[in-house]
Amino acid sequence: MTTTDDGPAAATRRRGAHAPGGAQQPGSARRPAGQSVTSRVLSVLSAFSGECPRLSLSDISRRTAMPLTTAHRLVNELTSWGALERDRDGRYQIGLHLWEVGALAPRGLGLREAAMPYLEDLYEVTHQHAQLAVLEGPDVLYLERISGRDAVTVRSRVGGRFPAHATGVGLALLAHAPPATQEAYLAGPLAAFTDRTIADPGRLRCALAEVRRHGYVISDRQVTLDAVSVAAPIRGAEDEVIAALSVVVRVGGPQPGTLVPAVVTAARGLSHWLRSHPERP
Amino acid sequence: MTTTDDGPAAATRRRGAHAPGGAQQPGSARRPAGQSVTSRVLSVLSAFSGECPRLSLSDISRRTAMPLTTAHRLVNELTSWGALERDRDGRYQIGLHLWEVGALAPRGLGLREAAMPYLEDLYEVTHQHAQLAVLEGPDVLYLERISGRDAVTVRSRVGGRFPAHATGVGLALLAHAPPATQEAYLAGPLAAFTDRTIADPGRLRCALAEVRRHGYVISDRQVTLDAVSVAAPIRGAEDEVIAALSVVVRVGGPQPGTLVPAVVTAARGLSHWLRSHPERP
Repeated sequence: MTTTDDGPAAATRRRGAHAPGGAQQPGSARRPAGQSVTSRVLSVLSAFSGECPRLSLSDISRRTAMPLTTAHRLVNELTSWGALERDRDGRYQIGLHLWEVGALAPRGLGLREAAMPYLEDLYEVTHQHAQLAVLEGPDVLYLERISGRDAVTVRSRVGGRFPAHATGVGLALLAHAPPATQEAYLAGPLAAFTDRTIADPGRLRCALAEVRRHGYVISDRQVTLDAVSVAAPIRGAEDEVIAALSVVVRVGGPQPGTLVPAVVTAARGLSHWLRSHPERP
Repeated sequence: MTTTDDGPAAATRRRGAHAPGGAQQPGSARRPAGQSVTSRVLSVLSAFSGECPRLSLSDISRRTAMPLTTAHRLVNELTSWGALERDRDGRYQIGLHLWEVGALAPRGLGLREAAMPYLEDLYEVTHQHAQLAVLEGPDVLYLERISGRDAVTVRSRVGGRFPAHATGVGLALLAHAPPATQEAYLAGPLAAFTDRTIADPGRLRCALAEVRRHGYVISDRQVTLDAVSVAAPIRGAEDEVIAALSVVVRVGGPQPGTLVPAVVTAARGLSHWLRSHPERP
């Protein structure tokens, strides 16, 4: 139903990260040897990706530019803690204990837990996809998705990224990002996935203004020619936009315009909840 | 709707880990200084928990038994990579980038993605809770939960743990664990949360045999006196039990017995899917 194709987001990352808070993008920790042990440990974790979730020791050594012996020592320590696990073929993969520690991220599962009832409400409207995302650098990062069994195929996964300008949630988030972030995004290359993708800076600027004016966005066949999404921004305790939610439906299914009230109502309901629970997420 | 109370699982962890694959339990990485840099980095991550998701630098220093200066340097490197983030009050929390890397764990979101349509089907039956869990040491670790807006309160969260013997998913998993794991569990103290918790080794042994005989389990008011769960094991590509799913309903709601066919059907459907997709999760 969903693919694990992270290609487009990976391509976006290569165009240079402008992540908020100084957080580096995945892959950028691949620095040459001579670095601190901490950054070596982190570069081992960064060697794994959605495209390459399983790696041999020599893959890790090559991707981190570390000697095999160094990589072996680090990988052993990470495996013993549970940050890595070995699969049936002896290759390494991210371990369940790292997932468990990552689940403590308030901006990850904390936000997801608050959003879940609203996502469920949205899912019930269409039984296609209801999803929750945040902006991380130039990409949207999907925190959660509820998908129906017969839902239209989408090119992303929970924990995966996609270029912001090509998605409903991305447009909703970018429209409310700081002006400098928007300008940097508009100055960068804008990948086109279909002939409907907003790949022109002028059109994108216009689209972002529309999102701010209307409070929602309909992203029409921008990623694939059979899917359309309706998205709205979610505001946190201090009224800043911190996330977005959307429904994705098949072209020829429900008219996107008819879904707007449900999407906006869910986004406002969640924003209201977050304002009244400032300690979370 | 759900609490973030990890107290019972934390208590279980203290009784000593017998985790499969040699993975250490959370908290056990809190070794004194003098350790390798890698284990210091990991001990900083282990300092965070469901009970204490936000820590000051001095909290981290104290919990890891590291000098403030060492903790400061490690925390800075982890923050710059995105493994940690600072909240509005300057305290540290697990960062979204660590969540993102953790999301690559095949036993985490990979399994969750395969299970989602079956969980949705189960959720539709009751609109209470449908959940997915795996066995990690003596605990069940919850990978996913879909919860209705008015569902009965449960004492766990996605990414959280609970002692296996007191939950439906835990009994389903423990019943199919290796004999040595079962014996070690039966030899340990069995915490009681209500007067219905199976806290006696003889009764537990009997309950596990019943699970194997029937292929499902009804866990009746073991955690709180208002909730009952119906659970069944999920088998992986090599027919080994790798996870369990359950529905949790309010006592006085639907008769648990009437939910058994739906739970068993969903668990078998997912097992069948996993057998026919041996490369995932």
